Amino acid sequence: MTGNQIDILINQISKLPGLGRKSAQRIALYLLNNKEQSLSPLISSLKVAREKILNCEKCNNIDTVSPCSICSSPKRDKKSICVVEDVSDLWAFERIGLYDGLYQVLGGTLSAINGIGFNEINLNKLEKRIHDQKVKEVILALSTTTEGQTTSHVIAEKLESLNIEVTRLAQGVPIGGEVHYLDENTLNAAFQSRKKIV
Amino acid sequence: MTGNQIDILINQISKLPGLGRKSAQRIALYLLNNKEQSLSPLISSLKVAREKILNCEKCNNIDTVSPCSICSSPKRDKKSICVVEDVSDLWAFERIGLYDGLYQVLGGTLSAINGIGFNEINLNKLEKRIHDQKVKEVILALSTTTEGQTTSHVIAEKLESLNIEVTRLAQGVPIGGEVHYLDENTLNAAFQSRKKIV
Repeated sequence: MTGNQIDILINQISKLPGLGRKSAQRIALYLLNNKEQSLSPLISSLKVAREKILNCEKCNNIDTVSPCSICSSPKRDKKSICVVEDVSDLWAFERIGLYDGLYQVLGGTLSAINGIGFNEINLNKLEKRIHDQKVKEVILALSTTTEGQTTSHVIAEKLESLNIEVTRLAQGVPIGGEVHYLDENTLNAAFQSRKKIV
Repeated sequence: MTGNQIDILINQISKLPGLGRKSAQRIALYLLNNKEQSLSPLISSLKVAREKILNCEKCNNIDTVSPCSICSSPKRDKKSICVVEDVSDLWAFERIGLYDGLYQVLGGTLSAINGIGFNEINLNKLEKRIHDQKVKEVILALSTTTEGQTTSHVIAEKLESLNIEVTRLAQGVPIGGEVHYLDENTLNAAFQSRKKIV
């Protein structure tokens, strides 16, 4: 192939999540064909990201300041903490804009296989915040995967003695979902949690 | 959402070919979570790419030197030029390793709608090289899209008077292709160009 430098670049791009070798090639060629409009601005943004963006010391969100803009906002209700796996989950909540409390970003789920335990997902930090902020409700907004649900369960158990409300997201038919396409587990959950409407 | 800097970064990533907003978010978070192992090496490679990689003055390939390593290799047959649309097509040929001639990278196809004419795709350069290198065969390896075939046709017409061999890639059933899944045009081309085997 051509210059070794190009290969190194393609290799690095192809290691990014969701990208393979072909898409990495395409992106590398695009960047090389658009040095001014695309490559240079991207380099600048990546450098700013590397230098300026850090994890919030309180909730583990990412921002240019710590505590992050959510944790330091006077408009947010400090008595409520929504526990999410990743920053992208936090963003999903912020997009719908209905939740006005704070977050705790775990940065993953408990996983014995991957060696992720209490320390890695900042569970002790969560307990400390519950004490310090006199939290009244903890919302467990974790994925309904096995790992997510195990993590939910473990956190709920740990918080049981604290005399606060611990809730989890409702499980059931997604909006726009067709019943005959649902997997058995979802259908089962939706049936078990059916709601009286009349 | 969070810091404006993150938004800018996500925006820029989402403009890369093949990426949408969701995948850009995922990549940005991955890079921010792996500053040492992923973000920093990527910044370095992109900077090297910006400064070191340029277009070959002869064939328009990209490399760290110009003329590129293919054009300046004594092992390559200078009497043959394979005309391709993009550098990725050149790479595809180099992967199979059967072709030992030189290339001409057009950088696109003729397109009245997109304002891409003779000058944009370096057709004059190709003619000059045919003269200078005493080229005997020009292989038109363009896509079998309408634009690719129009471009092929125009180039072939332009080269008609030069008394050189002008060939194009064979068209037919792709290897591993099932006849009943072929589109009509491909089946038609394959039928018209059928080969005697006994």
